[in-house]
Amino acid sequence: MQDLFAPAFANPAGSPIRELFPYMSRPGFISFAGGYPSPSLFDTEGIAQAVQRTCSGLAGSLQYGATEGLAALKEQLLLLCARRGVTCSADEMLVTTGSQQAFDLLVRVFVQPGDMVLLEAPAYPAAIQALRLAGAVITEVPMDVHGLQVDRLEDILRNLPASRKPKLLYSVPTFSNPRGTLLAPERRGALIALAHRYGFIIVEDDPYGELSFTDAVPPTLYEVSSQAFGQAHPVVYLSSLSKTVAPALRVGWMVAPPGVVRRCAIAKQTSDLCSSPLTQRIAAEYLMAGRYPQTVATARAEYRRRAQAMQEALVVQFGQRLRFDAPQGGMFFWVEVATPVDPQQLFEASVEEGVLFVPGRAFYPGAARSNAMRLSFAGPDLPSIVEGIARLDRAFTRSSRSSGLPSGSSP
Amino acid sequence: MQDLFAPAFANPAGSPIRELFPYMSRPGFISFAGGYPSPSLFDTEGIAQAVQRTCSGLAGSLQYGATEGLAALKEQLLLLCARRGVTCSADEMLVTTGSQQAFDLLVRVFVQPGDMVLLEAPAYPAAIQALRLAGAVITEVPMDVHGLQVDRLEDILRNLPASRKPKLLYSVPTFSNPRGTLLAPERRGALIALAHRYGFIIVEDDPYGELSFTDAVPPTLYEVSSQAFGQAHPVVYLSSLSKTVAPALRVGWMVAPPGVVRRCAIAKQTSDLCSSPLTQRIAAEYLMAGRYPQTVATARAEYRRRAQAMQEALVVQFGQRLRFDAPQGGMFFWVEVATPVDPQQLFEASVEEGVLFVPGRAFYPGAARSNAMRLSFAGPDLPSIVEGIARLDRAFTRSSRSSGLPSGSSP
Repeated sequence: MQDLFAPAFANPAGSPIRELFPYMSRPGFISFAGGYPSPSLFDTEGIAQAVQRTCSGLAGSLQYGATEGLAALKEQLLLLCARRGVTCSADEMLVTTGSQQAFDLLVRVFVQPGDMVLLEAPAYPAAIQALRLAGAVITEVPMDVHGLQVDRLEDILRNLPASRKPKLLYSVPTFSNPRGTLLAPERRGALIALAHRYGFIIVEDDPYGELSFTDAVPPTLYEVSSQAFGQAHPVVYLSSLSKTVAPALRVGWMVAPPGVVRRCAIAKQTSDLCSSPLTQRIAAEYLMAGRYPQTVATARAEYRRRAQAMQEALVVQFGQRLRFDAPQGGMFFWVEVATPVDPQQLFEASVEEGVLFVPGRAFYPGAARSNAMRLSFAGPDLPSIVEGIARLDRAFTRSSRSSGLPSGSSP
Repeated sequence: MQDLFAPAFANPAGSPIRELFPYMSRPGFISFAGGYPSPSLFDTEGIAQAVQRTCSGLAGSLQYGATEGLAALKEQLLLLCARRGVTCSADEMLVTTGSQQAFDLLVRVFVQPGDMVLLEAPAYPAAIQALRLAGAVITEVPMDVHGLQVDRLEDILRNLPASRKPKLLYSVPTFSNPRGTLLAPERRGALIALAHRYGFIIVEDDPYGELSFTDAVPPTLYEVSSQAFGQAHPVVYLSSLSKTVAPALRVGWMVAPPGVVRRCAIAKQTSDLCSSPLTQRIAAEYLMAGRYPQTVATARAEYRRRAQAMQEALVVQFGQRLRFDAPQGGMFFWVEVATPVDPQQLFEASVEEGVLFVPGRAFYPGAARSNAMRLSFAGPDLPSIVEGIARLDRAFTRSSRSSGLPSGSSP
């Protein structure tokens, strides 16, 4: 069968994060790698109650369901969206098997090989992979501490030949993955104006928006956009219960105009017919029970503590050898190495020390070298964060030594 | 956004079956349309017990899981496969979000626009749709009462230009959808020999294989093929718990060589990261409890009764006006109308009478006219089957009358 693969699958590379799976389960390892919510924050009591309520009418949740999603769940998600300024109706919403599927469906519906797609860089690897497999021509838009650089995007757009029109721009504006940045409010308006002027769609992926450490979160792109341009505005909104309730529910969703939702539903028919009506019912029961706000508040407080612990440990242990901007929410530190250390050697030394991170190059579509790494503080508890950063320091020292550079022991 | 759709989605048609959804929920309607298992056959007690056992260690089932599937579930599915002659190891199996996803992943990994794919016709509409959206060139292989006509396939292959090589052949050999046929044993060997000679992959979709009304079921294509050709044999096997345990679990799987499984897992990373670890755990617990064989035995007996009832009702009500071969398993009658009745008028009259079926043209990739209809006996109980066929007769009479043809009242 080897000679029959489509070209994109002749020698495919797996997700650089998912490839770390075998390490993550090693006993004693501390993982800053996956963007996994902390299991200690799962509201197992509340989810178990939602499961019990689902079981009391179980027969009704065992059959195939509508491709568009369970009506009772959509009702709850509409309320949740409204609280985020994403005001929409049921026919503008599609429930998906995680928000990963929502992006995949959009790519299927809009992108054919050779189409241009704009991507904030560094970006979420599974988004890169979906675009790559679709044969998209990916154009990177650089980021700084305030998120996607909209002035640089404008330069890119202005210099495009008239024949070249981008179809989509993918961004995580609120607590980006991997950079942890919050897109500045003034950039939000400017970005939407560009999308409107140049006629492309902004895919606003918002899994982390509620995991803010402060109350000062700017409005979603969707809200700004719909207020500025009404129904024909250029933002499609994606979100998920994976980072707030539980990944295993595989409940994500998309908010888009009915014509887009209908086409994505047709694509979903061939993808998986429908998302599990059983987990959709459990999610609906959970949201109906009213526990979601408290669960999110607890998670915000705990992630803030963990981010604080990671920040302190990084400063104490590394001093000036690492550069980062502490995030205001989400799950990630994006840390740049200020000393010349070979990233691959550092990664290998870290594995030997029993600590994992995702090397920066995983977040760029090209073959870019990167001296950065993504550290997720969401999974490990406070002592593990401190211990993990200490291990990282030892890995630094080892890889500096083995590369013949001056030792990187802490000050 | 309307001007940005990829060409395949400019004016897409939804699944002809899923489009019947609004009718199906009308009170009093009798549906022979969907290939839905009977809710009365769901082992709700056993599934509820599996849910309870999952709940007792719930925290362990709420996180992301491996893309390849939950190890405990794969163990059970390997045993289930072995009982069907599908002997394989864990790295030859991928758990998918229903077997629909398994086929979709194969199409992604193997088919690029313009590639030739062989398809038994009439065929499962969602398979047609997946191939159409992928831009495949679909070549129909006709069927008769013994399933796919392998001699006709050989003619097709012999007459292909040397530059034209099919990549895949899709078939439901055991109780096909929609035709209900069982591929004759001698044809199984001949089909596999052709695949081996011409170098294409047979996708054996087997959701109904265990729903046999007799004990005389020929071995799976996978078994015949692996015995004939060893490891390099040409069959990829798909199956699902949707027709036997519950569709809402969305548990399907693929058995293929490790290189294919690995590529499909990479495609799955961009599709939905992983299938729900929660429903996978519930499915594993259900299978571990040992209730599956009895559940299948009960379903077989009940579906045999319903098929018998439908056969009798069709004969009594219609006599020679309809032609069909009674199925030996599965969920479907494929009924050809022997009198000249306009299919669209018949469908509309049936909706007016409160009975639903799927018109035959839904099962052909081209714009073929068809005088056939698919009637599923799986959903309605025995009295509803009798009543539904009576309504169908009234719809016949009405549509014959309105088309000016002789009345089709029953003899």
